[in-house]
Amino acid sequence: MDHQHNGYIAEFLEFLSIPSVSALPEHKPAILACASWLKDRMTRAGISDVEIMPTAGHPVVFGQVKATKPDAPTVLIYGHYDTQPPDPLDEWESPPFEPEIREGKIFARGAADDKGGIFPAIVATEEAIKAGNVPVNLKFLFEGEEEIGSPNLKDLLQQRKDLFSADIAVSVDGGMYSTTVPSLTTGCRGLAAIQIDVRGPAADVHSGGYGGAINNPLNALAEIVASMKDTEGRILVDGFYDDVVELSPQERKAFEEVPFDEEAFRRGVGVPELFGEPGYSVVERLWVRPTLDVNGFWGGFQGEGIKTIIPAKGSCKITCRLVPNQEPEKICELLEKHVAKHAPKGVSVSVTRFPGNSRPYVIPSEHPALSVTARVLETLFGRKPVVVRLGGTLPIARTFLDVIGTYMVFFAMSSPDERAHGPNEFFRVEEFERLRKGLPLLWEELSRAL
Amino acid sequence: MDHQHNGYIAEFLEFLSIPSVSALPEHKPAILACASWLKDRMTRAGISDVEIMPTAGHPVVFGQVKATKPDAPTVLIYGHYDTQPPDPLDEWESPPFEPEIREGKIFARGAADDKGGIFPAIVATEEAIKAGNVPVNLKFLFEGEEEIGSPNLKDLLQQRKDLFSADIAVSVDGGMYSTTVPSLTTGCRGLAAIQIDVRGPAADVHSGGYGGAINNPLNALAEIVASMKDTEGRILVDGFYDDVVELSPQERKAFEEVPFDEEAFRRGVGVPELFGEPGYSVVERLWVRPTLDVNGFWGGFQGEGIKTIIPAKGSCKITCRLVPNQEPEKICELLEKHVAKHAPKGVSVSVTRFPGNSRPYVIPSEHPALSVTARVLETLFGRKPVVVRLGGTLPIARTFLDVIGTYMVFFAMSSPDERAHGPNEFFRVEEFERLRKGLPLLWEELSRAL
Repeated sequence: MDHQHNGYIAEFLEFLSIPSVSALPEHKPAILACASWLKDRMTRAGISDVEIMPTAGHPVVFGQVKATKPDAPTVLIYGHYDTQPPDPLDEWESPPFEPEIREGKIFARGAADDKGGIFPAIVATEEAIKAGNVPVNLKFLFEGEEEIGSPNLKDLLQQRKDLFSADIAVSVDGGMYSTTVPSLTTGCRGLAAIQIDVRGPAADVHSGGYGGAINNPLNALAEIVASMKDTEGRILVDGFYDDVVELSPQERKAFEEVPFDEEAFRRGVGVPELFGEPGYSVVERLWVRPTLDVNGFWGGFQGEGIKTIIPAKGSCKITCRLVPNQEPEKICELLEKHVAKHAPKGVSVSVTRFPGNSRPYVIPSEHPALSVTARVLETLFGRKPVVVRLGGTLPIARTFLDVIGTYMVFFAMSSPDERAHGPNEFFRVEEFERLRKGLPLLWEELSRAL
Repeated sequence: MDHQHNGYIAEFLEFLSIPSVSALPEHKPAILACASWLKDRMTRAGISDVEIMPTAGHPVVFGQVKATKPDAPTVLIYGHYDTQPPDPLDEWESPPFEPEIREGKIFARGAADDKGGIFPAIVATEEAIKAGNVPVNLKFLFEGEEEIGSPNLKDLLQQRKDLFSADIAVSVDGGMYSTTVPSLTTGCRGLAAIQIDVRGPAADVHSGGYGGAINNPLNALAEIVASMKDTEGRILVDGFYDDVVELSPQERKAFEEVPFDEEAFRRGVGVPELFGEPGYSVVERLWVRPTLDVNGFWGGFQGEGIKTIIPAKGSCKITCRLVPNQEPEKICELLEKHVAKHAPKGVSVSVTRFPGNSRPYVIPSEHPALSVTARVLETLFGRKPVVVRLGGTLPIARTFLDVIGTYMVFFAMSSPDERAHGPNEFFRVEEFERLRKGLPLLWEELSRAL
């Protein structure tokens, strides 16, 4: 590591200590502080036109750098500075917004997802500017709403199409297959999110005085949720799979070649056995099959001991990961229809759609940026990348294609063991360095290929 | 109302302001303060041998008074000084432990259930002692664990059988059919309580990174809960109804005569329609049919917006109201078997039994205390009482019968609209007076009948 390294890490820890949680309204000031911090740091890096762009929600931070050669292609770097909420807090070994380095790992909420993508990109740019060698025009789009589904990014892109136009977008959000196996991400799943609320009695009532005569919102909600999947994991919502593109035999074969260690995966996540839709491999279930998961379920008494009530209400949040060619709005409609059809008697049931639905995304296998990215990854890791898709959702990939007409490649170094979205999220110092050193190589190769 | 009335009410408000919540460990000091308060007040009333009796949980407060005539029968007065937890706090119009009188109603947690039973009994005794006319030997047993199922009362009764022996027990916990229709309670339902915990991944994980490959504890728990009842409210746990005593045609007829206004009941509890086991009237479903209700269900993200996780765990609390001759321990076993049989794949499921299970209770219709109680109620209300059972659970009734061999009658004035266990619980001032004036009449009648 060079002499710059320690200074960069200190700055990175400062960046991580800003609790920029996009989902929680009380964190709005931290989001704004984080955008300011980024603006200052990007300006100091020598990036031009740095600007905090307001949206209907949290702002985007933009900037650009002119290439040092003429006729260079334009590369847009995408990442996000917002984070997931940190709870459950009591499961963190060190506080989520007091970053701590232990054994080469930087522990903090947002370390892997995605501040560890953004910050190395800024310092790589700073170094390229200082060295007088910026082989492509660079644009930076760092958003503050990725973790809530980027509800306002599409509007901003539409309003300022020209400013954001590029020949290729490079996402520093995403990740590698593992710390030793690089991967070429060719697509990601989309997202559809709803909340179901079930109301019973006007207030919590005594289960002795009313039990047997009225329906219970929690029993009713469990019934609705259970109706959505069979015991083997198939989704039972009418029409849910209608638009799913089945893999070609070639694609299935490519996925079979991915060195996926199911037992290590199982051990890593800590479940007694893996589980999912029959007829598909684990890799296929993660990348090209849609899901329906309850993210939260609550109602009634949650304290110690017993409280013999029939609660007034029960609620749950459900998200579906979508695959080509499922449309989020259509999926929400199907979910609403399903809930209406299965609504138990004696209670009131309502469904709310969340903003931030996202379409799934795939880049064509012949796109030149794919082979360029593969080559750089081979240089960095000493082995060819495997071809994968992302189980998660990067709304920007699809939005960029839909609005600007530009595909996106993924160049992000975080590994799947780093607990993005969970307690004790971390990012490896070596991955920080790999991104900082790798981006200039990618820019160089892209300047020749595009 | 006489000159004593205002003083009594002021003291009652003081009693209500002690937050004696038995389910919450942090309220232990308040429980002890409440027991002390009772001991002092009973001693001042002239009651003898007042004693705070420790148990493995919260203490019992005991006291006795010798009859002013020889050869008098012994009447044990039963009530409880503990309350339900007050949450949800934000639905209370005045704080639960800052009692407030509005339009003749005393609002506070525990006002109806059961401090409004205990306190009038103490002042009635005080007045009888002062007047030199105590027609029966009186014993008082005020417990501090009724709301958590009286887990330690049985042991205490067994240890001090002679001290608690009586010819009849009179419960000031329970209630009348309405403010104008008195009722003779001939039985109550029992209780069996469990918690189900479902564990999936070792920590909350990203639903994009794992969704499709592992089971979700909340989906799994919903599946378990939904498997327990059909869509019409029948309980599907194998063997659950095996020991339920069906009503005789005469008993069904007596219940049909109860002036139960289903529409008023529905409006009162605020549900769109009543709901429950087909083939039984609402009254039957409330009094002589068993139930299975989820009292609380929780897991994952409960904040605003979305958080795309598969949570590490999900939990729910379930209580069943039981009817003759269901046995709580057997019911818990059946529930455990059901959960084991329906445990979804890919998660770990465990069931915990709560202390405080209670057997259902019925008093024979020819018991002399029943006709005596009916006569006094007719005097107080100006109409004959209807014969009812209690949908709730009064563990002491059954425990008393099992351990001391003594039946219990119910002489409690609270009405079903008073939101016992819910927010804005209240007790009517007129009911306070009715109990205070009615108890001496009951004692007089019992002294002749037993």
